[in-house]
Amino acid sequence: MTNHLSPKRTIMTPGPVEVDPVVLRAMSAPILGQFDPAFTNMMNDTMHMLRSLFQTKNRWAFPIDGTSRSGIESVLASVVSRGETVLIPVYGRFGYLLQEICERYGANVVTIEQPQGTVFSQTTIIDEIYRIRPHVVAIVHGETSTGCMQPIDQIGQACLNVDALFIVDAVATIGGTEVNVDEWQIDACIGGTQKCLSVPSGMAPITYNERIESVLQKRKKIERGIATDDDLQTPQQNNIIPSNYFDLSQLQEYWGPRRLNHHTEATSMLYALHTGLTMVLNEGLEDRFERHRTHEAALIAGIRALGLTLFVQEDYKLPVVTCVNVPEGIDADQVRAFMLEHFGVEIASSFGSLHGKIWRIGTMGASCRKENVLFVLAALEAALTYYGVNLSRGNGVQAALTYYENQASNKERV
Amino acid sequence: MTNHLSPKRTIMTPGPVEVDPVVLRAMSAPILGQFDPAFTNMMNDTMHMLRSLFQTKNRWAFPIDGTSRSGIESVLASVVSRGETVLIPVYGRFGYLLQEICERYGANVVTIEQPQGTVFSQTTIIDEIYRIRPHVVAIVHGETSTGCMQPIDQIGQACLNVDALFIVDAVATIGGTEVNVDEWQIDACIGGTQKCLSVPSGMAPITYNERIESVLQKRKKIERGIATDDDLQTPQQNNIIPSNYFDLSQLQEYWGPRRLNHHTEATSMLYALHTGLTMVLNEGLEDRFERHRTHEAALIAGIRALGLTLFVQEDYKLPVVTCVNVPEGIDADQVRAFMLEHFGVEIASSFGSLHGKIWRIGTMGASCRKENVLFVLAALEAALTYYGVNLSRGNGVQAALTYYENQASNKERV
Repeated sequence: MTNHLSPKRTIMTPGPVEVDPVVLRAMSAPILGQFDPAFTNMMNDTMHMLRSLFQTKNRWAFPIDGTSRSGIESVLASVVSRGETVLIPVYGRFGYLLQEICERYGANVVTIEQPQGTVFSQTTIIDEIYRIRPHVVAIVHGETSTGCMQPIDQIGQACLNVDALFIVDAVATIGGTEVNVDEWQIDACIGGTQKCLSVPSGMAPITYNERIESVLQKRKKIERGIATDDDLQTPQQNNIIPSNYFDLSQLQEYWGPRRLNHHTEATSMLYALHTGLTMVLNEGLEDRFERHRTHEAALIAGIRALGLTLFVQEDYKLPVVTCVNVPEGIDADQVRAFMLEHFGVEIASSFGSLHGKIWRIGTMGASCRKENVLFVLAALEAALTYYGVNLSRGNGVQAALTYYENQASNKERV
Repeated sequence: MTNHLSPKRTIMTPGPVEVDPVVLRAMSAPILGQFDPAFTNMMNDTMHMLRSLFQTKNRWAFPIDGTSRSGIESVLASVVSRGETVLIPVYGRFGYLLQEICERYGANVVTIEQPQGTVFSQTTIIDEIYRIRPHVVAIVHGETSTGCMQPIDQIGQACLNVDALFIVDAVATIGGTEVNVDEWQIDACIGGTQKCLSVPSGMAPITYNERIESVLQKRKKIERGIATDDDLQTPQQNNIIPSNYFDLSQLQEYWGPRRLNHHTEATSMLYALHTGLTMVLNEGLEDRFERHRTHEAALIAGIRALGLTLFVQEDYKLPVVTCVNVPEGIDADQVRAFMLEHFGVEIASSFGSLHGKIWRIGTMGASCRKENVLFVLAALEAALTYYGVNLSRGNGVQAALTYYENQASNKERV
């Protein structure tokens, strides 16, 4: 057995990222029974805070017990019926994941694709919505695989116009940059914990509105082991949700006043999410987004001052992930391993054809702070220098420091 | 917002149960990236310890990121194909859950049923296996809803004889009483964390053998976003697993040397599971089972000395859950609420037709200790006395104390 005490890392990946010690300690609180009023109050508080996080008045906002993709699968499995048409604009790996899940559940998936490192104009997507008139439009808001963020504020209205449901994967963006569920007319939205929320992986907050709820009502079936006589006498739907675990029609009865005993809520993870959300809302969404923008800008200044280049244009760059082009002739994974071994600093590789071409540096949640930005720049410079890249030595850290100084003096002037 | 610090309870339910502070504290360790060698070593250690826990030489033993039923659904979704016949002997709520999940995945489910509070003779099940010749036999080992434990050591051989796969839900029993995967010829087995393992809810350890793996190989598909050219050139299977999240053919590649980036492992929950398993194996399975038997016996002695009766015959009683008949005219939930409010002691109700008829008292994991047994007896007596039941006052606790004294002096004599 290896020692299970984990070393302290500086984590600058697109997740999982560092977690504030206050949140980590919350998980050490003793266990509560899932129907203990002390616990159900915490469940209700969590729903309340999730509504603020998602900027929505939706009744339903709760976590799925699983990693981020469990939230995505629960929404798609519960909403999309076999044979229905789903339009998915794909601009990276996680668009393919939406496609993959929908196809496994028997949907007729239509994709439009955009080269990796770019995004769609919203007009392109809207035109396609009017042409295809799908049942569902599903899209990734922040594509961590390429470091791009797709503008989506105009798409919900188009969906409403053709009676399509609009589902958004905001796993990477929630808590780090604006995600406005109600204003953007998003019908169902999925967030992630282990990225900008800075809560450990293992829960996936979701929210959905009445349009989605009416679909769930038509597919509802309470499992026999916990069904009441009333449930059993309700005529059986013939289009029930094919997964039990991801069945939102039952899950909402667990999170609602009925407290249907569907599963045993993940106690300690809920403590973490509850505490994490408290910290996010105490900081304030606007201030938190501003903090993410500041450290992104400092990182970019440093990267450029070193003489390195960015993979993505700034106007549609994902503000919480910065993709850096790997210099010619350099083994990208060797550099990452060097940084981890000698500095304890972790940055990420990418997937498929981008593997070895770009590094992905996250500035998310508790990892998104000055010391971390300075340290990742110093470590990256040292690693690249070690492997023979000719850089503007020292300039990366200095440029970031200068950026921070200017920020501070601008603030003083205001 | 309510205060999120949870009160300290004495939890004597069939789960979630109390967690040792050492395990709770493990979750406060800083986050590690999922491909950090410090973390992948911990993943490997966890697999190693799970093999010991399940008493198996299986290559595959790892947790699913979700609550216990996520483990059950992942095995059934991955193994059972649409139209295949599954035999499920049902003797309580969780048998219906197996049926429910299999039906949602399109199986042809055949059940045999046994009245609640009893179990099958193994001959009955084996006869049915030879008659039906199903693809899969799925059964619950410990049915917490009724407090019964089904003997299953002879069933695996019968399954092998008709080329059926044998899947066992050992959520309630793993770590508290014998579950011998290899000796009992179980092909796939699912454990729970929040019961006898005393790890918070949110992970579900599973194990499966090569017979199951060969089914997975025939259904394997690596999702496009992370597929290599080799994967994409492999001819597409037409019977892929309908869930992405629960796709064991991909999950095993995440837990295996390929480290397929399927999802972000639930970091802090893995710390908890790793630490919890270390504690279980340090105690030793035999000693741990013996501890569970001892406190069960003390509890039963106390219950009987109070003048209350048990719901289940001792020869097939689940040793980690004791179901007590509610005395005539007593509101079972009122008694539970009284115990929680005044003593901070939690016991459980049951489901469906048994609700209000029995209480369920767990003696599981870290909750399974002398103080807790004495305290639950004292609190139950006080609540029943308060509500006017005529009990042999004081005798419950005394009988348990006497049992413990005799145990201690027997040990000294040995």
